Amino acid sequence: MRVEIWSDIACPWCYVGKARFEKALAAFPHKGEVEVVHRSFELDPGRSKSDIGPVVPMIAKKYGISEAQAQAAEDNVGAQAEAEGLEYRTRGRDHGSTFDMHRVLHFAKEHGKQGELFQIFYRANFAEERSVYTEGDERLVELTVEAGLDADAVRKVLADPDAYADAVREDEREAAELGATGVPFFVLDRKYGVSGAQPAEVFAQALTQAWGERPPLKLIAQDDDAAACGPDGCAVPPRG
Amino acid sequence: MRVEIWSDIACPWCYVGKARFEKALAAFPHKGEVEVVHRSFELDPGRSKSDIGPVVPMIAKKYGISEAQAQAAEDNVGAQAEAEGLEYRTRGRDHGSTFDMHRVLHFAKEHGKQGELFQIFYRANFAEERSVYTEGDERLVELTVEAGLDADAVRKVLADPDAYADAVREDEREAAELGATGVPFFVLDRKYGVSGAQPAEVFAQALTQAWGERPPLKLIAQDDDAAACGPDGCAVPPRG
Repeated sequence: MRVEIWSDIACPWCYVGKARFEKALAAFPHKGEVEVVHRSFELDPGRSKSDIGPVVPMIAKKYGISEAQAQAAEDNVGAQAEAEGLEYRTRGRDHGSTFDMHRVLHFAKEHGKQGELFQIFYRANFAEERSVYTEGDERLVELTVEAGLDADAVRKVLADPDAYADAVREDEREAAELGATGVPFFVLDRKYGVSGAQPAEVFAQALTQAWGERPPLKLIAQDDDAAACGPDGCAVPPRG
Repeated sequence: MRVEIWSDIACPWCYVGKARFEKALAAFPHKGEVEVVHRSFELDPGRSKSDIGPVVPMIAKKYGISEAQAQAAEDNVGAQAEAEGLEYRTRGRDHGSTFDMHRVLHFAKEHGKQGELFQIFYRANFAEERSVYTEGDERLVELTVEAGLDADAVRKVLADPDAYADAVREDEREAAELGATGVPFFVLDRKYGVSGAQPAEVFAQALTQAWGERPPLKLIAQDDDAAACGPDGCAVPPRG
């Protein structure tokens, strides 16, 4: 079974939702047969790389609320993150473009390191004093190297704005096609969807349901004369 | 959409079937949205690495036919391979264990090189004078390096018989669970199966059918208060 998770590094509920999903997955009897794939979704796709600013005033402006109310919203997310055993800095976080991070995540995917790197980006953004939003590339290089990838190769990806850009856009196009308007968005075997940082019990239910309803394969063109090889040798069909 | 292909390097119909599938895929309008994953299947899982011998006498013995008849069977496969534009040596090929190759293919998968390496193994086995069956590891190292992977890392994988062994066994377990008794075996979105080196038209039909019947997602626990972030900001649900 395959679970695809659309999320953004800048999305606090993605950080919390991932932990809740992983809690459910850890207790799932067939966890060894579940493949998790991360997909890109930018909350702020038009944002320029140089447009960086503190989170709390940004929230206040977006909702038309006071900075104290915005801080209270951050504190609430922080409390829910802590309840999941996650560190969450409710003061001093920045907000900015995540496009380059998503490009690098697709590069990391080719090297089997996407899951690790996503977690490293989350930790840097939400738990640590290392902002992922910087004008230069060195912070992202530093974090990507922590996932075991080569610094020069990552620098090349970051220096070329087209590198893996199509892969990011394709993920976002698929999210829209699947009906996702926000993240986190979990898709199980392209059949079931779970929207938002639902409680672990909801993910457990979704895993169980999707697992139980895996359809038996429908064979197309079943044919005893098919050109195939098995333990007893290779069939040689009459044609040819 | 995802297409998983179970096959063995030693399987001539897998080599031919892959070319037929790829012909259909190249003409498929949604090919950019099709992800191809290779899965392991050994025709001869109990075979020891040192048990290497020429293909034609092996076929003759397996079917209880003469070597001339076995050679005619090889010639037939060769003709069908050529019809697909593939080179195929009908004389002088060897047969042996493919377990180490499958282990290395799983290593290559982690580096995004599984598809390339599969094709390199096929070419060496069916088209070139480079046998993939050797007592030592250097031929497999040589071929894996051609896929862009690191020689020392591959040597480490080959030296440790447990490395990626579980991944190979897991693929084979899944094949059995899905009802595959021979290869190539194609699975589209875990919904449709195609067994054998069917003509390209059958693969074209399978791709079209599976694409058209992709189910709309069923949302589990749809909830307007879900903790999610979207372009307009992050919803803060009442709980917490």
